[in-house]
Amino acid sequence: MDRIPILRMGEFLLVTIQIDMHDRLALALQDDLTNKIAQTGARGVLIDISSLEVVDSFIGRMLANIAAMSRILDASTVVVGMQPAVAITLVELGLSLEGVRTALNVEKGMELLRASLNGHWKGRLHGPAQA
Amino acid sequence: MDRIPILRMGEFLLVTIQIDMHDRLALALQDDLTNKIAQTGARGVLIDISSLEVVDSFIGRMLANIAAMSRILDASTVVVGMQPAVAITLVELGLSLEGVRTALNVEKGMELLRASLNGHWKGRLHGPAQA
Repeated sequence: MDRIPILRMGEFLLVTIQIDMHDRLALALQDDLTNKIAQTGARGVLIDISSLEVVDSFIGRMLANIAAMSRILDASTVVVGMQPAVAITLVELGLSLEGVRTALNVEKGMELLRASLNGHWKGRLHGPAQA
Repeated sequence: MDRIPILRMGEFLLVTIQIDMHDRLALALQDDLTNKIAQTGARGVLIDISSLEVVDSFIGRMLANIAAMSRILDASTVVVGMQPAVAITLVELGLSLEGVRTALNVEKGMELLRASLNGHWKGRLHGPAQA
C-alpha cells in the first residue's frame, strides 16, 4: 500500500487514515489530494483519523499542511473522528492543530462544510473558524 | 491497528479497506459492522476496496460473508472502487463474488443503494441484483 484512497462524495472528498504515516506516504497524500481537488473542483476535504491512536507532531504538521494547501485551492478541511485520548495528548504536547477545523464524526464534518460553504465570505473575513 | 473504522453517512455505512486483511481483522470487521448496523439501523453498507491490488479467495469470502450478514440485518452491501486488474484476476480465478453487488465508485454505490431502497420489495422478490 503506497497510496491512501481519496473518495469523492458529491462536492467533498473523504480520506480515511488507517495506517502509520511516513514521509513518502504523507507527500503522496498531499500530491494526490491537491490533484484531486483541482480535478474535481471539490469544495471540502474530510480527513477521518478515528483509527489513529497516536497523533504526533509529524501527523499534526501534515494535517495543517493539507488544510493550508486545500485552502489555497478554495477547499475547506475538517478533521473528524479524533479519539478523546488523542485530543488530550495533543493539548499536553502543546500541539493546537492551528488552522485545522475538527468535528466529532463524518456526518457532523459534512454539516460543518456545508454551513461554511453557505456562509463562505463570512468565514473568510473572520479567518478559519474553530469548531 | 486492530480495527477498521466504519463511518456513518446518513443511512449508510462506509468501510474503506486499506490494509492486508488477516483472519482476526476480518472477524473484528464482521463483528463491528453487524453491531453498527444493529445500533444505527443502517440500510446500506459501502465497502471501498480501491486500495486493494490483490483480492484473493479469503477477501472474496469475507466480502460475501459481510453481504450475507448485512442482508439478514436488512441492509444491502455494495463493493465499490475495484481496480480493473482485480476484476480480471477474480474472473480468472473463478471467483464470481456471488451475492455481492458492485459499483464503480462510492457515489455510484450510493445511487445504487438509494435505488434499491426505493425499489425494495421488487429487489427482494427477484433475489439480490447484480449491478
